[in-house]
Amino acid sequence: MYAALEMTSSPVVHGLAVIPAVRRLIELALDEDLGRGDVTSQVTLGTDGPQVTADMNAREPIVAFGVDVAAAVFGMVDARIELEIHAPDGTRVDKGALLLTARGPAHSVLAAERTALNFAQRLSGVATLAKRYAEAVVGTKARVVDTRKTTPGFRVLEKAAVLAGGCGNHRFDLGSGILIKDNHIAACGSVRAAVEAAKARAPHPLRIEVEVTNLGELDEALAAGAEIVLLDNMTPSQVEVAAARAHGRGILVEVSGGITLATIADYARAGADLISVGALTHSAPSVDIGLDVRT
Amino acid sequence: MYAALEMTSSPVVHGLAVIPAVRRLIELALDEDLGRGDVTSQVTLGTDGPQVTADMNAREPIVAFGVDVAAAVFGMVDARIELEIHAPDGTRVDKGALLLTARGPAHSVLAAERTALNFAQRLSGVATLAKRYAEAVVGTKARVVDTRKTTPGFRVLEKAAVLAGGCGNHRFDLGSGILIKDNHIAACGSVRAAVEAAKARAPHPLRIEVEVTNLGELDEALAAGAEIVLLDNMTPSQVEVAAARAHGRGILVEVSGGITLATIADYARAGADLISVGALTHSAPSVDIGLDVRT
Amino acid sequence: MYAALEMTSSPVVHGLAVIPAVRRLIELALDEDLGRGDVTSQVTLGTDGPQVTADMNAREPIVAFGVDVAAAVFGMVDARIELEIHAPDGTRVDKGALLLTARGPAHSVLAAERTALNFAQRLSGVATLAKRYAEAVVGTKARVVDTRKTTPGFRVLEKAAVLAGGCGNHRFDLGSGILIKDNHIAACGSVRAAVEAAKARAPHPLRIEVEVTNLGELDEALAAGAEIVLLDNMTPSQVEVAAARAHGRGILVEVSGGITLATIADYARAGADLISVGALTHSAPSVDIGLDVRT
Amino acid sequence: MYAALEMTSSPVVHGLAVIPAVRRLIELALDEDLGRGDVTSQVTLGTDGPQVTADMNAREPIVAFGVDVAAAVFGMVDARIELEIHAPDGTRVDKGALLLTARGPAHSVLAAERTALNFAQRLSGVATLAKRYAEAVVGTKARVVDTRKTTPGFRVLEKAAVLAGGCGNHRFDLGSGILIKDNHIAACGSVRAAVEAAKARAPHPLRIEVEVTNLGELDEALAAGAEIVLLDNMTPSQVEVAAARAHGRGILVEVSGGITLATIADYARAGADLISVGALTHSAPSVDIGLDVRT
Amino acid sequence: MYAALEMTSSPVVHGLAVIPAVRRLIELALDEDLGRGDVTSQVTLGTDGPQVTADMNAREPIVAFGVDVAAAVFGMVDARIELEIHAPDGTRVDKGALLLTARGPAHSVLAAERTALNFAQRLSGVATLAKRYAEAVVGTKARVVDTRKTTPGFRVLEKAAVLAGGCGNHRFDLGSGILIKDNHIAACGSVRAAVEAAKARAPHPLRIEVEVTNLGELDEALAAGAEIVLLDNMTPSQVEVAAARAHGRGILVEVSGGITLATIADYARAGADLISVGALTHSAPSVDIGLDVRT
Amino acid sequence: MYAALEMTSSPVVHGLAVIPAVRRLIELALDEDLGRGDVTSQVTLGTDGPQVTADMNAREPIVAFGVDVAAAVFGMVDARIELEIHAPDGTRVDKGALLLTARGPAHSVLAAERTALNFAQRLSGVATLAKRYAEAVVGTKARVVDTRKTTPGFRVLEKAAVLAGGCGNHRFDLGSGILIKDNHIAACGSVRAAVEAAKARAPHPLRIEVEVTNLGELDEALAAGAEIVLLDNMTPSQVEVAAARAHGRGILVEVSGGITLATIADYARAGADLISVGALTHSAPSVDIGLDVRT
Repeated sequence: MYAALEMTSSPVVHGLAVIPAVRRLIELALDEDLGRGDVTSQVTLGTDGPQVTADMNAREPIVAFGVDVAAAVFGMVDARIELEIHAPDGTRVDKGALLLTARGPAHSVLAAERTALNFAQRLSGVATLAKRYAEAVVGTKARVVDTRKTTPGFRVLEKAAVLAGGCGNHRFDLGSGILIKDNHIAACGSVRAAVEAAKARAPHPLRIEVEVTNLGELDEALAAGAEIVLLDNMTPSQVEVAAARAHGRGILVEVSGGITLATIADYARAGADLISVGALTHSAPSVDIGLDVRT
Repeated sequence: MYAALEMTSSPVVHGLAVIPAVRRLIELALDEDLGRGDVTSQVTLGTDGPQVTADMNAREPIVAFGVDVAAAVFGMVDARIELEIHAPDGTRVDKGALLLTARGPAHSVLAAERTALNFAQRLSGVATLAKRYAEAVVGTKARVVDTRKTTPGFRVLEKAAVLAGGCGNHRFDLGSGILIKDNHIAACGSVRAAVEAAKARAPHPLRIEVEVTNLGELDEALAAGAEIVLLDNMTPSQVEVAAARAHGRGILVEVSGGITLATIADYARAGADLISVGALTHSAPSVDIGLDVRT
Repeated sequence: MYAALEMTSSPVVHGLAVIPAVRRLIELALDEDLGRGDVTSQVTLGTDGPQVTADMNAREPIVAFGVDVAAAVFGMVDARIELEIHAPDGTRVDKGALLLTARGPAHSVLAAERTALNFAQRLSGVATLAKRYAEAVVGTKARVVDTRKTTPGFRVLEKAAVLAGGCGNHRFDLGSGILIKDNHIAACGSVRAAVEAAKARAPHPLRIEVEVTNLGELDEALAAGAEIVLLDNMTPSQVEVAAARAHGRGILVEVSGGITLATIADYARAGADLISVGALTHSAPSVDIGLDVRT
Repeated sequence: MYAALEMTSSPVVHGLAVIPAVRRLIELALDEDLGRGDVTSQVTLGTDGPQVTADMNAREPIVAFGVDVAAAVFGMVDARIELEIHAPDGTRVDKGALLLTARGPAHSVLAAERTALNFAQRLSGVATLAKRYAEAVVGTKARVVDTRKTTPGFRVLEKAAVLAGGCGNHRFDLGSGILIKDNHIAACGSVRAAVEAAKARAPHPLRIEVEVTNLGELDEALAAGAEIVLLDNMTPSQVEVAAARAHGRGILVEVSGGITLATIADYARAGADLISVGALTHSAPSVDIGLDVRT
Repeated sequence: MYAALEMTSSPVVHGLAVIPAVRRLIELALDEDLGRGDVTSQVTLGTDGPQVTADMNAREPIVAFGVDVAAAVFGMVDARIELEIHAPDGTRVDKGALLLTARGPAHSVLAAERTALNFAQRLSGVATLAKRYAEAVVGTKARVVDTRKTTPGFRVLEKAAVLAGGCGNHRFDLGSGILIKDNHIAACGSVRAAVEAAKARAPHPLRIEVEVTNLGELDEALAAGAEIVLLDNMTPSQVEVAAARAHGRGILVEVSGGITLATIADYARAGADLISVGALTHSAPSVDIGLDVRT
Repeated sequence: MYAALEMTSSPVVHGLAVIPAVRRLIELALDEDLGRGDVTSQVTLGTDGPQVTADMNAREPIVAFGVDVAAAVFGMVDARIELEIHAPDGTRVDKGALLLTARGPAHSVLAAERTALNFAQRLSGVATLAKRYAEAVVGTKARVVDTRKTTPGFRVLEKAAVLAGGCGNHRFDLGSGILIKDNHIAACGSVRAAVEAAKARAPHPLRIEVEVTNLGELDEALAAGAEIVLLDNMTPSQVEVAAARAHGRGILVEVSGGITLATIADYARAGADLISVGALTHSAPSVDIGLDVRT
């Protein structure tokens, strides 16, 4: 139902002029690491350290993401650092690949090093994990999507990293998608009441999605006019039945609930259009990226 | 050489009056999730939703950390929400344990839910992983410590979570510890030159630590007066030799470099005083924490 | 096609704990008016002015909105000011109606007065104008909606004011709705290419809306699978033809382009489901609200 | 009494390096519109959209103001966008006139478009309305001035727009002018007591202005040494009497209170030196400015 | 010409709800001292330190100022700290006087101590020095006033401290007073041209002040209509001649230029109405204030 | 025990790209002085003032510090101003020496002048005073160090100025040094208990320093394993005894408590390794620096 996604670059970093929220996050990071100066460089290099060239390399095969954010970190520490990006967002690279070159005063490059790496390692970790999930459903019509279980402050970056890894985005935030859950249903009295209330009031650009946990709720949601159904914590065989029923009415089917790389293909084959995986962002391990400095 | 650490509470959150940098991070998180309102609650609940009680529970055994940060999130969304913290930082709890109770207007509680959980899940993930590392070296004199490989913006929180899990903290930032690495040595010409420069200029509250990768460098560092040595990427048996040599001069020994839960005990037994593990903060998976809402 | 909207309260102000972006805007406003103190109160009242009670009143019939934002302004200037809100968001009140009572030190109340009024007058102006537009289409199935032509910094407030006045919201921002315009079509080569690209990649919570300016483009958009069509700058009779064609395929119809209170009913009767009016937010005149201070 | 004002450029935007408060306002605006990316460009253009040239044009005759603020918006979204300003602040242009040219990547230009236009339309609206008011008193000695009834966050911009339109500025904020109103008089006991207190304590760079509502108060204010009198809500014929009396003592006369384009000339001819009009900033409708994008 | 000033309290701190700019400054201060936690309390007290009472005392005779800012610092570190202010702004106290009592958790009180003291010591230093200057001109008609040579970020606080010490305020900033200096005169061609330009355009609440350095310039300024003259770097006897000439036309006379406690009385007796002293704010030494903690 | 310090440049300003905390401080300063525009330039120069060249000169012999911060101020006001720094941080210059040249539009240069000077005068004041203290101990082994008694918001700048003047830095903040004081000792029960608690828990990069006020406490601290002792408020002859005892165990000795330029040499000769002087930062008078503008 969805074509392959070929987004390969961050929508949020344009020529190092990062959007305000990302800039604020980088400032928090620089405040916390560099806000009191760099005492080691100060006592060993003084303030007239040599000009250096630093190569940022992948130390394992990765899907690169956030190299431009790392570049922005260097640029914010010292505007004199010259930067060259070798791996645009979404690039799949081998161990040893050169991602970024930074040239400038030694003490500035060393001051920015750790913060720049912390961004690139984490974000490339998300893109790399997303790629593994995307590949796990190749050949099916399913799209793997993220959730709102992102690192606080990183949502716009992590959602772009998910895209770069070949998965898709679920709603960005509480304001850009309608997802009716058990609490809303309980407060409204029934699935039907909740869906009808939503249909009457929803902004027209948004579809109405309803979370259901069994076939009874599914039928009620479909009857009430839900436009997407989210099957939560069902087995693949339950999904197969439910998806057939929803597709019969032309309704998209999302599944969620503890789905892993080991089980995702079963859900994809069972007919899910969308499979949402919180681990894409809340538990992606950092990848290994290093910086080698030459004089 | 180090006594057990019993830090069990965040030093940064006092009675919900969080320190400025943490408040800024929470604001970034609320901006990104709630900055455009909560359209689902709006279209299903209207604006006169019922008063609800929400229980935040552990869905697996964890070392709790950041429940007070989660409480601060609820408080920042709606000052009328009443909050009760059941699991102080560092508490080890079983699956199902109640961590926090929040009572207030439904739409406010639901608006804060995801952001509050994102903080608690991530930070408890760090504390829980730290506990596993701390336990892996029980019975030795080694202390497991963190690094500066923290999530950008989260350093003060993640370092406190590491403490709460029973590990120790390495330097907080570039300004609060002297760690001479290969780049500094290269720029100074030799280990000896770097250490001597540092000894002449270092602020007196700070010890001088030098990274070495072989016994030759170790000897040079010791001769030059290094006060701590960091053995990088050595095997346990190499560490054993090196540690004996350093301890002979009363010098602390730190080891680092890809050390995992599987290998850490060997390093501890080899004589390391400190074992630094970046994964404590850069790759700790989130733990599962949920919120159950009752009317 | 849409039920009446009865949103009557701001989703963004909860018990004076305003969301971060609104708080930042209020801070900008206090910075600019009060950042250098209040020299008139200083030279006439000294610093021991009397306790006063101040009544905020409507000086013409209005739909109230932002009284809680005004209250937040008083609270931010002096936490000792006691506040009572008499007109929740969306309340229609007559000339002379009491909106807010503030009690506290004279110099604090006077210091906050202008900033508080500036917010309430502007936001109630938007709600009051929205009410007039909403009433102009009563008896039709059309919903009047806002645009992104909001006052910079005020979007979340102005969109809530629009709701409070009885109109609806279009997409909140560039991230929460897909609206394909001439520039996107030009860059993709054709309406069909643009719509197909969007259908392949769009996040599933979002419908795909396409702007068209004539029947040829409309047919192409419908054939390509557009889910909403925006008829730009058409006459009511052109809309009638186009709407019939779109409704025949179950597709929602939005109209836009210089529509005023004088012409909106014609568009509603011509079959528009949604009528977007930038003037709701970019040209709503302030309403008259005053503050009377009693000792 | 006042010469014509020929201020034609913003005092606050210098070569795109905007002052901090304006930058913060632009950031709020970008946060709210672009903080979650631009999903339409993403799904239609991908991330390799073409280079485009965009012309910002007046779609009605206007007095341009804020074109440089709009330029700053483009620059903050993407530093690679090349900008050329064709209409300096205060320029009177016809329908169709070119105001700004922006050249850069399509997705960056489109991402900045709405925010840039929202600033230019609103600020030019203020300048254009100010020009109409200024022209309404041509041939008299009166100067039309603004008030503190500005859009929260926009004061420095809107006051500059008022100047650019040919009117003058009243005090900038509570700290840069002394205006004794009824509340101050009530608290001090009498006009005389209030003026005397102010004369004793006022910072020497500031004149003391007193609001009066009848001739009795006027006489008391003049006797007490008021340096400017503000006649509030008087008719032109009342103003004529009062102004003659004040001018007899060499005192400036300001009038205020619901004065419109229809009535302002009468007040000017009645002898007002200054006529303050809140509508200049609180109710100026946006002017129509558009952006045409060429590949 | 000026009555005594009896301002005795800060216009900017109302019930601990400090104005935004002051809150931002306090946040900068807490960021820099506490942003990485308090390692000494952590390692000695753990996190369950005792409740303590802390008394802030003057350790020399001072004019207190900023005790409420200090209180705000404690409150921002931990909202549970109970605070009692004993010395309102402007109070003259002896050595040993109690200024503030703070009661709360030991680690919170200790964490806030230094930052709170740094504010109180510096601001009381300004107030105490201002008192000395004010007393030096007692019996003359001169008022000592501050300048814009304030500590960056502290202007609103330091100007209030100057008032509290019994001196007066010159213009707050570049926007709230007209002071024509040599550079403006050079650019306009002559004193006369500069004054005439200013008179034609100046906002009416502001008087026009002109800096002159000799009698020739003085005469030109007076002839052109200057409303205040600033005599820069003249001797007392030169001032005597110049002041007589200006007073003959009813014009205020300010003097400036390296005036000290030793020379100020001579200038006052020579007829200066205003004597501006940059040292009030740029070189006031801190006074000694301490904090004694009891368990 | 310490070599001479030759730090001569700010570690925090790299090519005008200042670190976030310094940039925020500069923004506070520009907000407060320029946030409402520059009315004098506006009324005298209009907006088309000439291009000017401004020379920043020392008006007395100083140790320059913060010229690059001043340059950053000019750059933030108007990016078109061309800047040339003639006196790197730490340079000792004579009266009349040229420190900085700025070329650009007159109204921009004048708008930045006061704020730029306020930074340079204050920071050079600190460096100049530090130089006097450093010279007072020449020929001894003592190092004069600063304290945390810095101007709130200026710590990173003032500590760098202290270095530039030839003194050393004590701990940066509460997180980067362990200094056990009377309050910690009281809470722990004894010097011994406090030191032992600290030794068990302290992060390994930090030494443990203990404040003592008599020889009994000194002995207890030495016995417990203190790594540095701070002798508070002792006479030089008491210091001589205490220092001998501490040096006998290889322990560093710091002295503090009202030490002045008149008494510091006595303490240095008495054997102090470190002498901390709060006045370096809390009471350094500004030096005289001016700006001469040429057309």
